[in-house]
Amino acid sequence: MNTFLENQNWRYATKKFDATKKITTEDLNTLKEAIRLTSSSYGLQPYKVIIVENPELRAKIQPSAWGQSQIVEASHLIVFANEVNFGAEGIDNLIQNMSQTREIPLENLKPYADLMKNNLTTLPEDVRNHWTAKQTYLALGNLLNAAAELKIDVTPMEGFVPADVNEILGLEKLGLNASLIATLGYRHEDDATQYYKKVRKSNEDLFITL
Amino acid sequence: MNTFLENQNWRYATKKFDATKKITTEDLNTLKEAIRLTSSSYGLQPYKVIIVENPELRAKIQPSAWGQSQIVEASHLIVFANEVNFGAEGIDNLIQNMSQTREIPLENLKPYADLMKNNLTTLPEDVRNHWTAKQTYLALGNLLNAAAELKIDVTPMEGFVPADVNEILGLEKLGLNASLIATLGYRHEDDATQYYKKVRKSNEDLFITL
Repeated sequence: MNTFLENQNWRYATKKFDATKKITTEDLNTLKEAIRLTSSSYGLQPYKVIIVENPELRAKIQPSAWGQSQIVEASHLIVFANEVNFGAEGIDNLIQNMSQTREIPLENLKPYADLMKNNLTTLPEDVRNHWTAKQTYLALGNLLNAAAELKIDVTPMEGFVPADVNEILGLEKLGLNASLIATLGYRHEDDATQYYKKVRKSNEDLFITL
Repeated sequence: MNTFLENQNWRYATKKFDATKKITTEDLNTLKEAIRLTSSSYGLQPYKVIIVENPELRAKIQPSAWGQSQIVEASHLIVFANEVNFGAEGIDNLIQNMSQTREIPLENLKPYADLMKNNLTTLPEDVRNHWTAKQTYLALGNLLNAAAELKIDVTPMEGFVPADVNEILGLEKLGLNASLIATLGYRHEDDATQYYKKVRKSNEDLFITL
């Protein structure tokens, strides 16, 4: 079978992590690079990725995430935080980066910058916030897939109170909002859910060919 | 280097596809399986994936997608369409599937069904629509990553008029909304953008460690 599909079938949303097993720095760096290389709308990457190492912060988050044990027992906790009220600054930063990386004069990139500003900064704030939040799902997808290749377990979570997590991590003053949480580590041998058959829609239910 | 990262560095948003090269049925089936196995909130997969083979439909979509050539020149066109006004039926379908797949009596799954119904069907419709749309980004992520492993190019697009695509494909009457388009195939040797250096935020710009 194809490696990607093998990894997909190997992974599952781990309910209980083995708190004694830690992800190595080398593997964590690979996962960070997988997140960093993620595709995004116009390449803008309109989010930050918070790696929460402080155990006290993790303990504070737990009650705001349905008390899920993974929050404190997983090797690592990552919060994807989308930019709130995304504006021209993010576009200018991308253009600056593109100019340096590709050695293109800034003025040659102005039409592209203006196109993005025209398309994006004119949108209502709530539409921009939903749009930046959506991009974090692509970053989570890269984390899930890169981790599966390394046989590292990841449990993604939408089930938490964003306002609480924003408060605990001080995200609001950074112009950020907690969009997704991922807990990472190694499945505990006692986690019975690892043996459950994967439940997915059939091809007939999921695909339409026109 | 790690295979996943190699593939990430290999891929790019192809601007010009080689219209003479077609994805094989075997590879298309692998990509469909990668999409089908994608993680989603509660495992609900609240979307359909439309594979548009009809060249007339693709030609009709092109003007509503900034006239981008990939819409008609790529080997395949896929539209991810999120469910609109997601309700109890989708939850009942998942529970039915879970009961059959895992051989668990339906009544044992009723608490889980009730939890999902309580959390989801009580949300305002626009919140549910954004939530179903977000899940399509995970499916796109799986497509991007599985395709890169097969050295198949994918160009994801948010730049289209959803209302037009809904009308052309008859999605509204199916309770669906076009969320994302992906064009798939093989890069044309004339596509100069394949040689551009990848532009991404630095680790310092993207990650925060707390």
